[in-house]
Amino acid sequence: MVRESEIRASEVAVEPPMATDAGLVFIGRIRTPWQSRMEAPRRGRLDGPVCRIEVFEPWVAALEAVAQYNRLEVLYWLHLSRRDLVLQSPANDGRSRGTFSLRSPVRPNPIGTSIVQLISIEGAILSVRGLDCLDGTPLLDLKPDRTIFEPIAPPQVGDFQTDGG
Amino acid sequence: MVRESEIRASEVAVEPPMATDAGLVFIGRIRTPWQSRMEAPRRGRLDGPVCRIEVFEPWVAALEAVAQYNRLEVLYWLHLSRRDLVLQSPANDGRSRGTFSLRSPVRPNPIGTSIVQLISIEGAILSVRGLDCLDGTPLLDLKPDRTIFEPIAPPQVGDFQTDGG
Repeated sequence: MVRESEIRASEVAVEPPMATDAGLVFIGRIRTPWQSRMEAPRRGRLDGPVCRIEVFEPWVAALEAVAQYNRLEVLYWLHLSRRDLVLQSPANDGRSRGTFSLRSPVRPNPIGTSIVQLISIEGAILSVRGLDCLDGTPLLDLKPDRTIFEPIAPPQVGDFQTDGG
Repeated sequence: MVRESEIRASEVAVEPPMATDAGLVFIGRIRTPWQSRMEAPRRGRLDGPVCRIEVFEPWVAALEAVAQYNRLEVLYWLHLSRRDLVLQSPANDGRSRGTFSLRSPVRPNPIGTSIVQLISIEGAILSVRGLDCLDGTPLLDLKPDRTIFEPIAPPQVGDFQTDGG
């Protein structure tokens, strides 16, 4: 079962530095069927329930041309996650693993990334499939899936580098 | 050519809200061959130059078990990017597109995500290929590529939902 926010046997917490190196602005809110971590999927599926992403002003104009991509990368803020664990026990079985070897929501900067199928955009509302986050999760960013996006800017020197630098 | 930080013809800026909804901690630093936006690749390539990711304390312990994944998702803070454009002109040709339809570093929350090939981990240093960011870019997170990661936590109800919710 997914944790609420307790520390489990074999997990290790650290005293984290203040999270003041940069600041985020919540640009929208995500609506999903999941009200609790006890029911949310461990990861999204592209045939999962339709979820809604509401984009706030002044960012709605930035949705222009998004509809031409049928898969988007969504970044969101896992607002209920603790941030201080370096070793975690996902199965709560006494065995632990490094946080960076997991896709757990518990991490120093709890940013979730999902790939979603875009169903429609109406005004400031996107309908998508593929999310796994809780209802009410703050939105951080939307961008085309890397595998279907072609850069529009002219080529740069670095585009062609393939060796030691 | 990639922008420094000017606004181009046909681009639209907004007055952004204060970026104080959540705070980030820089957990490391990325070393790449690129000192300027005029030379960095528009996107990483898995046969690109070897780059180094230095993880800071107290997070080094969280690297445990990372070496078993040969592809990682890396999140970083695009510290030189402006954050106020809703329409951008990547080709600087008078035509503009919505920010969320682009993978430009210029966005309300300038978080870069890359998929990298992991070459080695020695102590707090990862050697990887596939990055496109500037030398000195602050690190936000590391996690296994979603396509090779299998959840360890026991199944949840939401894992099996495929309809309207």
